[in-house]
Parts: sequence; structure tokens; C-alpha cells
Amino acid sequence: MSSFRTSPAASAGRTAREPMIAREHVEAAWSRVRPHVRRTPALALATGTLGLAMPVALKLESLQVSGSFKGRGAFHKLLVSKVPAAGVIAASGGNHGAAVAYAARALGHRAEIFVPTISAPTKVERLRRYGAIVHQVGAVYAEARAASQIRAEEAGALTVHAYEDPDVFAGAGSVALEFAEQACFDTLLVAVGGGGLIAGCAAALGERVKIVAVETEGTPTLHAALRAGRPVDVPISGIAADALGASRIGAPNFEIARKLVADSVLVDDAAVRAAQRGLWDELRVIAEPAGATGLAALLSGAYRPAPDEVVATLVCGANTDPASVV
Amino acid sequence: MSSFRTSPAASAGRTAREPMIAREHVEAAWSRVRPHVRRTPALALATGTLGLAMPVALKLESLQVSGSFKGRGAFHKLLVSKVPAAGVIAASGGNHGAAVAYAARALGHRAEIFVPTISAPTKVERLRRYGAIVHQVGAVYAEARAASQIRAEEAGALTVHAYEDPDVFAGAGSVALEFAEQACFDTLLVAVGGGGLIAGCAAALGERVKIVAVETEGTPTLHAALRAGRPVDVPISGIAADALGASRIGAPNFEIARKLVADSVLVDDAAVRAAQRGLWDELRVIAEPAGATGLAALLSGAYRPAPDEVVATLVCGANTDPASVV
Repeated sequence: MSSFRTSPAASAGRTAREPMIAREHVEAAWSRVRPHVRRTPALALATGTLGLAMPVALKLESLQVSGSFKGRGAFHKLLVSKVPAAGVIAASGGNHGAAVAYAARALGHRAEIFVPTISAPTKVERLRRYGAIVHQVGAVYAEARAASQIRAEEAGALTVHAYEDPDVFAGAGSVALEFAEQACFDTLLVAVGGGGLIAGCAAALGERVKIVAVETEGTPTLHAALRAGRPVDVPISGIAADALGASRIGAPNFEIARKLVADSVLVDDAAVRAAQRGLWDELRVIAEPAGATGLAALLSGAYRPAPDEVVATLVCGANTDPASVV
Repeated sequence: MSSFRTSPAASAGRTAREPMIAREHVEAAWSRVRPHVRRTPALALATGTLGLAMPVALKLESLQVSGSFKGRGAFHKLLVSKVPAAGVIAASGGNHGAAVAYAARALGHRAEIFVPTISAPTKVERLRRYGAIVHQVGAVYAEARAASQIRAEEAGALTVHAYEDPDVFAGAGSVALEFAEQACFDTLLVAVGGGGLIAGCAAALGERVKIVAVETEGTPTLHAALRAGRPVDVPISGIAADALGASRIGAPNFEIARKLVADSVLVDDAAVRAAQRGLWDELRVIAEPAGATGLAALLSGAYRPAPDEVVATLVCGANTDPASVV
């Protein structure tokens, strides 16, 4: 039982005829995940805070279960799927893997997470703390992912993709609906990796709020796709490669983004680092690089709001060593 | 112009006939400081979070301007005082000094902060970043404080005491009124150092909410005073000595606390450290030891709520090296 009709072609990411989701799908997803996730706080920053020439609303989604917005999508996928006894499988040593492990444990499912052998011991240890069986396979992510697919077919487990799945990104979009209840804004800046968060946010609010995509120069998957008119592979590098480092925007995500994302800007790694430092120095908030990328666009001037434009952004994750931000 | 009638004797902390403040004083203080401080977020933790057997409301006052609740009291003191051209003077390398420097800069006053020569360079640097003139005088805090008093008299500057001042603690108490707007609770656990925060919270809510004082075993100023029936000196040690390390509870603070604080419990340093770790691991919130002390009483069982008692606590500061909590 999927909450949306997803064509097989779309799932395989091979065509432009992907399913669209709309606000009502995100609303339905929100009502499903709400009992399982945290209502994360919003913070109103007065003009002058962090040197900004405008007030900004921040949503601290970094305080979400599992440490990032990914908790919402993982819960939603598991809640709308018939999870077999073999449980769920994901390939990710990062936020997605943590979110799937967390949600599976909370819902009583078995979880196997595949990560490359180079994954940081702290990340592997966290997956185990969340109750997952961790397989360290292959030198790079692609090898771990390939191994996860073989294992999922053998075991008959449910594979949870990080972003290229409308069930996952409808869950992620619930953060935007929640934010709109907490603050009024004209414009929402959203960091983009594989495009799960922005697809969900755009489906939720894109008809009435200006959605601005923010990527680092080293992880420009949506920016490159908008230029090319279709998802294209991009080389990945830099500070946000870990969390924003999908090499290609998800196909259904791109279909939503090109209709409902109003603007796409890039920031450099130094701007991200400055935003991370500012969040700590001024607000005592820890953000991972991807979590500070939206704010970086305002601080660096990569996105310049009009005089009366009310802006907001998500601090979407904090799964980083806190010592790295100071 | 002081917002309360404060007897000279009380200011000097020499008598038990100190002025009391009541809820209406805290409400007035809140209306004064509100334009200058942050409305900090509250977070509802579901049963099971951090292993707790009950839901808990947390207020993240750690996100307050200057990194702790002290910002509220410092702004209030400066807003109700006639600040001379010589500006304000405080002796503190910690949260109070930072708060006074921050508020003085925001309100256009000169600030001189006295700290002992052993103060951490990062703390001195932060005071300078807030625009204060920093004097590093004496090997210990008492010497820095004595030097600050001489300087204040010479210069005709306004001295701002960290807690033994009703204007300061009425400002601090605004955090409790704000929290009561955000969440419903029967009981509020409050960390105690010199007693500024708990005096303000008790004045604000003590008639209708059970106020529980939490101190570490190494900083038991209120606990010892309640036993003795009067403020007494206690030796200070341990993890929270930096922020909770007043050696004696403030006199007016004690008068309020003994009337309106329902319970006083102690936690050990390991419980505080565990609470700091739990806040980071589960919530991605950084707290300094004092900021995690209230929660430590729940996690350790030092305070055990009744079955239907709804509890809340303040994460009151985050001025610590974030690397120290992981």
C-alpha cells in the first residue's frame, strides 16, 4: 500500500513521466508521521542578528529524531509500506541510513544498513545504537548500494531509497507545512542534495511560497539539471559532499522542482562554514554543512531578498562533530 | 529609576529584610526586555525520549542572546537603570559578563568587564567581540571583583551584580512566564547557582507551579541555605563550578526561594555529564553543565515526579566548548 500511485518507470528513474505529488499528499503524509516525529521549533531572528539586514525565520529541523529531516521521510515510507518480515534495507552511512534505522526500530522492523568500509566509526556505531544490522561493504558508496540491492532481493526486504521516492519526499515535505504554521514567510530557502527535501517542500508550499533551492558549488545537482532541462550527473566535491552529495537529482524530484522551484542559487564552501560558525556563535545551534547551506545563501548574498520579502530557511540537520563548527 | 524599591542594606546583602518581588514585577520586566531578547523555543519530548518514563517540556533558553538566560537580566537591569556616561561594570568571565557586555552594546553603553588572569582566552575574546573593555586582574575571581568595585567607584559606572539584584532576577524570571505560554506543566526544575534564575522563576510562577531547585553536589548553595535557614558559604567544586559556582546564595534570592521553592535536590557530576550527552545524542542540543542540570535530576531519578505530574525544565545555557559534550 503506497500512498501515491508510482509508476515503475518513475521508480527506476528512467523517464520524465514521473508521478507528481501535491499539497494534499504532503498533508496526508504529515498526519501519518506526526505521532512519530518531533514538532521542531522555529526561531524568529530579528534584523541585525548574524549581521542580516532583514528578519529571518529559522526552523530547527536539526532537532528532529535521528538528527535531520530524513526522519520524516523514513517514517512515512515505513508507515505506508507493507514491510516484510525481512525488514528494510538502505544504503547510506549518513542521515538517510540513520533515519531508516531509527524509524525501523521505533516501528518494530528489522533494519539492515549498507555502508562503505571507509565510513566513520562514529556513524557506524550510531546505526548500531539505533538497532540496525550494519554491513560495511565496498570501497565507495556505489558498491555498498549494489550490495544492498542484491541483499534486498535475496532476503525479500523493502528497499528505502534516500530521496527518489514520492513516499519519502512527501514525508520530508511535512516540515514545510509545520513551518508555515509556526511562521509567516514569502520565501523558503531549501538545501538540495538528491532533491527529496525540496520536492516535498515545493509540493507542500510551492503554489503560494517562493521556493529557492540552495546548493554548494561542489554539489550542484539541481542547478545543473535546471540548466540542462533534465537530471544530469555532476561531479561532487567539497564541504557538503557527505550530505548533499547525490551525483544526480532524483527524476520525480526534478519534475516537481522545475515546476515549483522559483530560483536556484549556489554558495561556496566558505559561505557554508561561515553560516555554521554564525549559528553556533550567535544562536548556540549546531548545524552540519548541509544544514547551514540555506542560511549561507542569505549571509553571503547569493540570494538577495527584495526589500519587503519575508524569508525563512530550514536548518535541516546536525549530524556532524560539533567540534568541527567552532 | 529602579523598577523595585531596593533597600541599600539588601543591595549590600547584609540583612534578611530584602525586598520581595512578585509575579507582576516579573511581568513588567518581561514587557521591558521583550523587544531586546529572543523568544526561545520550547520542545515537547514524548515519553521514552532519553529513556524518560514521562513526557517532558524543555525550554531551549540556551539559544538566548549571549548564550544563556543571563541576557534577560542584564537587559532588564540596564533598561531600568540610569546608566552613566562611564557605562556599566561587571566582574565575570562567564555568562553574566557576556550578558552585560552584549546588552550594553545593544543599548549603546560602554561596558568594562573584569576577569581573573586565568580566564580562558576564548571567553575573553568573546567579551571583546561583544564590544567590552576587558580587564584581566588578579589570580582569582574575588580579586577581579574587588578591582571592578574600585574602578566603578572611581569612574562613576553602574555595577551590575550577577544575581543579588531584584532587577536582574526579575528579568531572568521572564523566561518562566514565556515558558508557561508555550507549554503546560505542574513542575519546573531550575538549576541554581547564585539564585538569580530560580528567584525570578519562583516569583513568576511559584504560586501556581511547583518549583524544584536542582544543584550539583559540588555547588549546593541553596540546599545548604535551606538546611541552615539562612545563606551560608559552601565550598565549590566539580563540573558546574564555572556557572553555578557562587559560594553563597544571594540574600533576596534566598528569601524568595524559601517561600516559593517546593523542593531542592542534588545531582552528581556524572548525572550532569550524562544529561549533556543525552541532549546532544538525542536532540542535537548543546548545553553547558549548568544548562543540563535540571534535566539531570529527571534522568538520574534525583527528582521523581508523581504518576500524573507534568514536568518541565530549562536548558538555561550553552556557553561551553561543544567538543566537551560528545
